[in-house]
Amino acid sequence: MTAEIRVIGLHGIPEAKAGDDLVNLIGASIDDHGPALVDGDIVVITHKFVSKAEGRVISFDNIEPSDFALRYAERTGKDPRHVEVVLQEANRIVRMNRGILIAETRHGFICANAGVDASNVSGKEGVSMLPLDPDASAGAIREALSQRYGARLAVIITDTFGRPWRRGQTNVAIGVSGMSPLLDYRGQFDTFGYELAVTVIAIADEIASAAELVMGKLDQRPVAIVRGYHWEADPEEMGAAGLVMSADRDLFR
Amino acid sequence: MTAEIRVIGLHGIPEAKAGDDLVNLIGASIDDHGPALVDGDIVVITHKFVSKAEGRVISFDNIEPSDFALRYAERTGKDPRHVEVVLQEANRIVRMNRGILIAETRHGFICANAGVDASNVSGKEGVSMLPLDPDASAGAIREALSQRYGARLAVIITDTFGRPWRRGQTNVAIGVSGMSPLLDYRGQFDTFGYELAVTVIAIADEIASAAELVMGKLDQRPVAIVRGYHWEADPEEMGAAGLVMSADRDLFR
Repeated sequence: MTAEIRVIGLHGIPEAKAGDDLVNLIGASIDDHGPALVDGDIVVITHKFVSKAEGRVISFDNIEPSDFALRYAERTGKDPRHVEVVLQEANRIVRMNRGILIAETRHGFICANAGVDASNVSGKEGVSMLPLDPDASAGAIREALSQRYGARLAVIITDTFGRPWRRGQTNVAIGVSGMSPLLDYRGQFDTFGYELAVTVIAIADEIASAAELVMGKLDQRPVAIVRGYHWEADPEEMGAAGLVMSADRDLFR
Repeated sequence: MTAEIRVIGLHGIPEAKAGDDLVNLIGASIDDHGPALVDGDIVVITHKFVSKAEGRVISFDNIEPSDFALRYAERTGKDPRHVEVVLQEANRIVRMNRGILIAETRHGFICANAGVDASNVSGKEGVSMLPLDPDASAGAIREALSQRYGARLAVIITDTFGRPWRRGQTNVAIGVSGMSPLLDYRGQFDTFGYELAVTVIAIADEIASAAELVMGKLDQRPVAIVRGYHWEADPEEMGAAGLVMSADRDLFR
């Protein structure tokens, strides 16, 4: 079994613009600085890089805040146009308290501001949103990178989420292709014959966290390679959608 | 800034027993298989390895379940002696539903069964508990390993916790020494002059997750080295206690 994993941040990848071909940007970095992708590599990409290339950004010029957005923004000192986009991106508000807005996205993820971040859009103030279908985005990137390098790859698209009860945010997977996002130990036994208490590991989230350590937030390093981890294929193609706890099993709705 | 990190699982570390010197067990593995620890290494250790060495295990022979434990165990098909230890380890029950018991531990961590796992105790059925003071345990191990290798090290003790809203469990830090568990970006700005939306990263949890990828649950690899990550010192010695969200700031109590 795996005894060493390398996490490599790619160099010299520029800011993405709407319509950019991400695979060419990643490929150019690899051509210039290496390393070439090989069988088993996991390519981890921040969602913002994907969102910008997919045009999932909007300038504040084009936003008309609702009355509700205006009142919430007024009360919390936020930009009402930002609040308006958060509400448009939200399926459900989970908490709206102390200036923090936690919402469920169209994908079922629960995170601050429904994944909407302040962002520069063609020199104007605006926001970026999560990709519409991050599993599909991961799939398309995986397909193209696999062809380019002739290698069996997995792709993970990440965002940085907070979580209840613990301080700080961690990187998690919001799009996955090629690998199972979960590693299931159910029914397996330890050396003493005890069935394992830990049953299902969210491997894709752990890999997203590992990748964040080389990406950083100020480093302009939106892509990392995780090499040496023996992942399992995803025959059911569950993707990161498989990481969303269904409402009927969730003790914390 | 960091561009490559290595995560190395140590070989040949035996199961710990009460009273074992963990530093000797880790040192013997390194002497036999390498690699020697160097400045900047983070030594990541599963809590179970620490708990066993510290005697934080108890045989079911010594447990008299309360009436409450007996009734809950009867209703959920659990072992009442296991339930009794969970209740003894819990400061507060957060959820007790569908056979799942989520509790707050003495340390303020919120996790399944207050961190109590089925475990073999000298050939008898029993359970392991979390270390009494994992930050102190991490500190003592760091001190001894730093002396042995003449290196500036950090130590993280881990457990595998579930979390609301997402399927699967991930490794998190329950004890930290030498490094700040949090990386604070507040007041820093991106290349476009926007203040970063992501403000505080739970670095110690991300490192715990990275280490889990080489540890596995069936691999008997309780110790990993994370090499190449430039951590910040922890002048306030907050430890993993610094990862606990205080009740007054927690939106999800």
